[in-house]
Amino acid sequence: MKIARCTAGGSPFWALVDSEAGTLREIAGAFASWGPALTRAITAGRAGEGQAALPLSGTIRQLADVRLLAPVEPVNRVVVAGANYAKHLAGDFGLKSPAQPIAFLKAYGALIGANDPIRYPPLTSELDHEVELVVVLGDAPANLEDALENPLAAVLGYTVGNDVSARDLQRSGPAGIGMDLFAAKSQDRSTGVGPWIVTRDEFPAGSPQLRLTLKVNGQTRQDSTTAEMTWDVAQLLRFVEQRSSFAAGDIMFTGSPAGVGQGTGLYLRPGDVVEASVEGIGTISNVVGPKPGA
Amino acid sequence: MKIARCTAGGSPFWALVDSEAGTLREIAGAFASWGPALTRAITAGRAGEGQAALPLSGTIRQLADVRLLAPVEPVNRVVVAGANYAKHLAGDFGLKSPAQPIAFLKAYGALIGANDPIRYPPLTSELDHEVELVVVLGDAPANLEDALENPLAAVLGYTVGNDVSARDLQRSGPAGIGMDLFAAKSQDRSTGVGPWIVTRDEFPAGSPQLRLTLKVNGQTRQDSTTAEMTWDVAQLLRFVEQRSSFAAGDIMFTGSPAGVGQGTGLYLRPGDVVEASVEGIGTISNVVGPKPGA
Repeated sequence: MKIARCTAGGSPFWALVDSEAGTLREIAGAFASWGPALTRAITAGRAGEGQAALPLSGTIRQLADVRLLAPVEPVNRVVVAGANYAKHLAGDFGLKSPAQPIAFLKAYGALIGANDPIRYPPLTSELDHEVELVVVLGDAPANLEDALENPLAAVLGYTVGNDVSARDLQRSGPAGIGMDLFAAKSQDRSTGVGPWIVTRDEFPAGSPQLRLTLKVNGQTRQDSTTAEMTWDVAQLLRFVEQRSSFAAGDIMFTGSPAGVGQGTGLYLRPGDVVEASVEGIGTISNVVGPKPGA
Repeated sequence: MKIARCTAGGSPFWALVDSEAGTLREIAGAFASWGPALTRAITAGRAGEGQAALPLSGTIRQLADVRLLAPVEPVNRVVVAGANYAKHLAGDFGLKSPAQPIAFLKAYGALIGANDPIRYPPLTSELDHEVELVVVLGDAPANLEDALENPLAAVLGYTVGNDVSARDLQRSGPAGIGMDLFAAKSQDRSTGVGPWIVTRDEFPAGSPQLRLTLKVNGQTRQDSTTAEMTWDVAQLLRFVEQRSSFAAGDIMFTGSPAGVGQGTGLYLRPGDVVEASVEGIGTISNVVGPKPGA
């Protein structure tokens, strides 16, 4: 099933989406009130029962009438686990694949929805794209042992992310401390996430192996598969859980493959239409806004 | 005035503290419903009017009857602006003072209150302390221009933090990417913040110049002053705002002075009593919990 977070002008709400019909039905309440039960039903192989238990309103809305928001609430956190595609690291940054991934937090205010404009941040001249598979945690493991034994049990599903990055700011971090990932990746209203969560039961068991692509103005810039990840979703979840535990509703970016502007020199420009897609999930399409002061 | 966030066993609430009398009165509602108005009253030089407008309950509670929580709500973010004391960088890390600070996000789940135990994280053997002045943003500037022109206008007040850090994990970040500040500083239930916010009107105008100390089992380990910061509070706020904007209720750590275990080899051990103090604000006292598997 597909679950979106959206607004029809007022307060954000969650909704069950029928993308073929182009309609949706509102799910009442915050993620925490239904996400864990749905996730446990999926883990138990009873996704249908979980869906049946969702507190749905009777009203059918048109998908075209709502604005899709990033499918994560402000109370949750956004974890980015990176350095996860060897060709991206080698080709784009000249770095060998490290012994372990790197994880960091992205500010919630950096997120935009599936069709929102990308704010061009004021300090950068090297705005870049990064298509990523994004994991949505639907449940919090009871303890660290459970989290490490079966990390995918806590996953509600997957969505698409474009981890837009200011590369010149990324390099501006102090010597001996390292990349400034906060400046590069927490810029206000820059990171597209969506269009919705596709629940885990719609994919084969295990870490998903899905094609992911990114186009700028219709031209393909990134085209790879999550099968090329150095660490798969389960390994990334374990890595993060051992350092800082997930709560229900948190999301995790999983790294981006080769083809970004950092390697090609083709940075994003105002007016560019950036389409990020993951097979079986969908596409987000965001237009780059004007450069401040330009 | 002193404002705490606390619990008497049930839901967290904010409270106005009379520390001399050892009492407090509950403030009704979330921070966002009264924090901005109080902050604007302080900026206008009318702190008393702001206090009078706080939605206080009539009930007087004993301070000893509540548990003090970190004075920040889960919907807010925790920014750490570091590399801000030259002696700490040179003496403890062998690093020259950089051209600019480094900012990153700390997970909310890492926070503990003024007297809570410090969870000893499972992956580390080098658990370290860092006393810091912590800034509480009470209002969101209308725009970036306002934020840069007078960053202190958005400050409600200050509190004390102990940015507990796992140094071995901090060094475990991939070569070419840098320190793993997430693993080092977002460990669950490790970072003490409190005991309360002391509002900005109780300090002289400008960035505060306050002595800050940290003791372990009564022995002084850090003893410095915020006057030794490389970048003062206003400069750090500008640095962060240009990269990722603050919301009302966010907090910002401002770096730690020399004297940490990274330099002395004296890391925290289970049972240690760690007292972090900032002049004019107060003291947090946290006991280090047992080492997992030990």
